[in-house]
Amino acid sequence: MIQFYNHKGRLDLEIGGYLQDPVIAYHTYGTLNEKRDNVLWVCHALTANSDVADWFPHTVEEGACLDPSKYFVICANILGSPYGTTSPLHTNPATGQPYYADFPKVTIRDMVRAHSLLAEHLGIGRVKALIGCSVGGFQAIEWAVQEPERFERMILCATDAKATPWTIALDETQRMAIKADKSYGEPRPDAGMAGLAAARAIGLISYRGPEGYNLTQQDPDDLPADSLRRAVTYQRHQGDKLCRRYNAYSYMTILDAFDTHDIGRGRGGVAKVLSSIMMPTLVVGLTTDIVFPPEDMRHLAEQLPRGEYAQISSPFGHDGFLIEGDQLNALFVPFIEKHFV
Amino acid sequence: MIQFYNHKGRLDLEIGGYLQDPVIAYHTYGTLNEKRDNVLWVCHALTANSDVADWFPHTVEEGACLDPSKYFVICANILGSPYGTTSPLHTNPATGQPYYADFPKVTIRDMVRAHSLLAEHLGIGRVKALIGCSVGGFQAIEWAVQEPERFERMILCATDAKATPWTIALDETQRMAIKADKSYGEPRPDAGMAGLAAARAIGLISYRGPEGYNLTQQDPDDLPADSLRRAVTYQRHQGDKLCRRYNAYSYMTILDAFDTHDIGRGRGGVAKVLSSIMMPTLVVGLTTDIVFPPEDMRHLAEQLPRGEYAQISSPFGHDGFLIEGDQLNALFVPFIEKHFV
Repeated sequence: MIQFYNHKGRLDLEIGGYLQDPVIAYHTYGTLNEKRDNVLWVCHALTANSDVADWFPHTVEEGACLDPSKYFVICANILGSPYGTTSPLHTNPATGQPYYADFPKVTIRDMVRAHSLLAEHLGIGRVKALIGCSVGGFQAIEWAVQEPERFERMILCATDAKATPWTIALDETQRMAIKADKSYGEPRPDAGMAGLAAARAIGLISYRGPEGYNLTQQDPDDLPADSLRRAVTYQRHQGDKLCRRYNAYSYMTILDAFDTHDIGRGRGGVAKVLSSIMMPTLVVGLTTDIVFPPEDMRHLAEQLPRGEYAQISSPFGHDGFLIEGDQLNALFVPFIEKHFV
Repeated sequence: MIQFYNHKGRLDLEIGGYLQDPVIAYHTYGTLNEKRDNVLWVCHALTANSDVADWFPHTVEEGACLDPSKYFVICANILGSPYGTTSPLHTNPATGQPYYADFPKVTIRDMVRAHSLLAEHLGIGRVKALIGCSVGGFQAIEWAVQEPERFERMILCATDAKATPWTIALDETQRMAIKADKSYGEPRPDAGMAGLAAARAIGLISYRGPEGYNLTQQDPDDLPADSLRRAVTYQRHQGDKLCRRYNAYSYMTILDAFDTHDIGRGRGGVAKVLSSIMMPTLVVGLTTDIVFPPEDMRHLAEQLPRGEYAQISSPFGHDGFLIEGDQLNALFVPFIEKHFV
């Protein structure tokens, strides 16, 4: 069940500005034990939400990595997202109107600050494992840097310590598509929807990659030259699907935050910061991921003093982390249960 | 120098409709020898033109694969392109106004028919080598199927025998971006320009891939969170650059044609047709190409009775064929000069 924490006070933002009395939406699963040592904290990706059981199939189940009979699992919706946490659709206290395009720019560090506020509110001290895939991993590794004592171990899957030129190019391309829709900027929740659909289609090509499409979107042989291709209807359908559950302002906010990810900023650079992360960390790559290629994930693991690398074999590219539940559990469960000295 | 052939008559189009008295723009380099056996025919890719020396660096040079002192090199601008051949900006004889969005749908087979008309006009019989990279390869292999006797040998680089679901998804995503710009459809040459810029940016992420961006678009360390990233300005710049030399109607026409590519349509399927191509064919893949992955290129070569596979090592993805001139010449020159029995 979704729950809300209405923080009383200002959340100052890294780039400037603040959010007054921000709301943080979150889900929990299972029960905090007496020793308070069974907390797993999950950070969600781009367009997901705090309902981990919904978007992370076969993980919040008995015997799975987020087993609610053993663990107290928490996931907070990120700043800017339309799933309950303060977002561009919320009322700007300064104007009494929704923020829309005036929502302040947030960074991954701001998202982490909001997670930390929620942890304090819930009285959560030490966390047994911090888990993040994709943009969830951005938050996880940033949080591990901000509060190294809070976390016993960390799992990073299909993610990075800093947004690369490649992923920033993917983001900017999506922003260009949204802005090509001139209705973006109009003060209504459904502004820029055609642009948002195109942006989602751009995201998808990067999430699925060649193998993913060629495996699932084949046309029958001898299709007439003017017939609609399956890959065409798939792109349109996925664009429409996001438009029914998202808005262009939230999407833009989170794309912008993505680009700011850099655990090394103001701290002496990525390599130095990575070498200071002393908690055991499992880094998981996906064989066909073109967003966060497996060789980059291996390199990330190598730079972490207690990093270990593991790989999931999947034809579904970056989306593999949402699909390969069995392989994921097979790696995550023993790592979470392991006794580290 | 650009030359024009104004074909008198109808060019009937595969999907329906026709072009009346189509113009075909073309370039030639070098001289047709007395034996008329020194013709090389190059088919150009998506947004290129008939001026091979311009877009294919270090190929139209002495000692290079398209050496004009030895060969008579021909390249024709493709139907729909804004570089001289009949396109959406030309006058529709039925209305006396430019076609714009009413330009009829053309297929790769139609493009090849236009090449064939030009060959007849120029009195070209047998061609020593037919060469095509990317969408140029689409035309080349299609032409080789339509007129197998015309060509002695063929070079296919970073291309395919049929558009894959993956490449069709890339195309549809670009169409979605163009259509998100509501000015697309207005009867003016600069309609849909913001959409076209976004479409180009989408194309580029597929042409360059992770390695290409990470090699060339790195930001300095410790960039403030709100600074403009190099990859951002690069995407915008490349989008703007295409808008200065192209139009959204031509782009859409060629994207649509791309999707129709299928040498097997109405001929018993790709595998059967490939097994019937008896000319020696060099198939070249690029190590980091995510549009036409090297393993697919290798597979294409294996299906051709006289196919041989070679690979170019490049960090620049699909764009490698426009950049790795030395490696390209090193493969193409001996293949063109080889004596086949």
